[in-house]
Amino acid sequence: MLPEPLLQLVELLGRLPGVGEKTAQRFALYLVAEKSGTARALGQALSGLGERVKSCQRCGNIAEVDQAGKALCSVCRDSRRDSQLLCVVAKVQDLLAVERSGAMRGRYFVLGKLLSPLDGIGPDELPLEQLFIRLSEDGVKEVIVATPPSVDGEATALLLARELSARGVAVSRIASGVPHGGDLEFADQITLGRAIEGRRSLDSR
Amino acid sequence: MLPEPLLQLVELLGRLPGVGEKTAQRFALYLVAEKSGTARALGQALSGLGERVKSCQRCGNIAEVDQAGKALCSVCRDSRRDSQLLCVVAKVQDLLAVERSGAMRGRYFVLGKLLSPLDGIGPDELPLEQLFIRLSEDGVKEVIVATPPSVDGEATALLLARELSARGVAVSRIASGVPHGGDLEFADQITLGRAIEGRRSLDSR
Repeated sequence: MLPEPLLQLVELLGRLPGVGEKTAQRFALYLVAEKSGTARALGQALSGLGERVKSCQRCGNIAEVDQAGKALCSVCRDSRRDSQLLCVVAKVQDLLAVERSGAMRGRYFVLGKLLSPLDGIGPDELPLEQLFIRLSEDGVKEVIVATPPSVDGEATALLLARELSARGVAVSRIASGVPHGGDLEFADQITLGRAIEGRRSLDSR
Repeated sequence: MLPEPLLQLVELLGRLPGVGEKTAQRFALYLVAEKSGTARALGQALSGLGERVKSCQRCGNIAEVDQAGKALCSVCRDSRRDSQLLCVVAKVQDLLAVERSGAMRGRYFVLGKLLSPLDGIGPDELPLEQLFIRLSEDGVKEVIVATPPSVDGEATALLLARELSARGVAVSRIASGVPHGGDLEFADQITLGRAIEGRRSLDSR
């Protein structure tokens, strides 16, 4: 029913995460009908994307490529950051979330994946060598493991804790518990169990 | 936090229908990280879109522009279609849905909008003149109004019924009722009321 260029567009839009065929068709018809030039602007923004934006060569965050062809992200370029404090995250979105919290004054390392025996991702698939090189280059004293509190995230955190402790680096893990504004009544058992295990003393003596 | 080219991409993707800032960011990060060239292909597909795909000059459906620069959709080009039977729909997606049903052997006319007093869309905003020209050019005998069973859709259907009857064209409206596979128990009052009003005789005498 749809003309060929549009079918191709629907196929490409359908590759976006969480976008099915119907949504892709809706996007495509919007882009065709829309008059203010979004389709053209989006086409231009996408065409050179791979050359202008790359993974940061130090931490794996998203970085703009500079004139010398180097890709260093804004965190790695920021000299006020504490190089001895490193936060390890699974993916760039998680890095952005931690940055938004404003609670991290150190730098980052993006793993890109998590241990996942079911998907065949073992320790050899993780960029541990790059992480160790980073540790010695920057003289990192403390690593905060901010992988998600899922099975894969916990397994990865345990692996990192073992490997990093063996290298004399202090390792901590972000707290897991009832979220801010959350209701104990509706918290699941595991979350509440973790909140109790991870309780902090209020004793002010 | 994000580099400029990516921020621009997030802004453009956020214009897509139903896409908020978080989803747009997710799409953008996917397109940056993805290695098989989706970003480039999508960029190319979008760049020339406005020249290759236009609204069909007869019915408003999506059409590929031919070598002579004319835009006629696949339905309007199909000589086996009954030109005397015309289905009026609100938007291209609705036309595609009617086509998928396989129940329409005539042609189409896309209004592009519905009567909506609250949004300031009155009868003058609808392309009624083009519709009347189409009726006389094609010698249309019957019009099926397939606007949605919403307030705006019903108002538009009433307007069309009045205008078309006055021109001696038979007008019908698609049935509204309990959908196929639907449960009476969970149908809303208006739908069930319409299903009863629009009941059909099973009397086979």
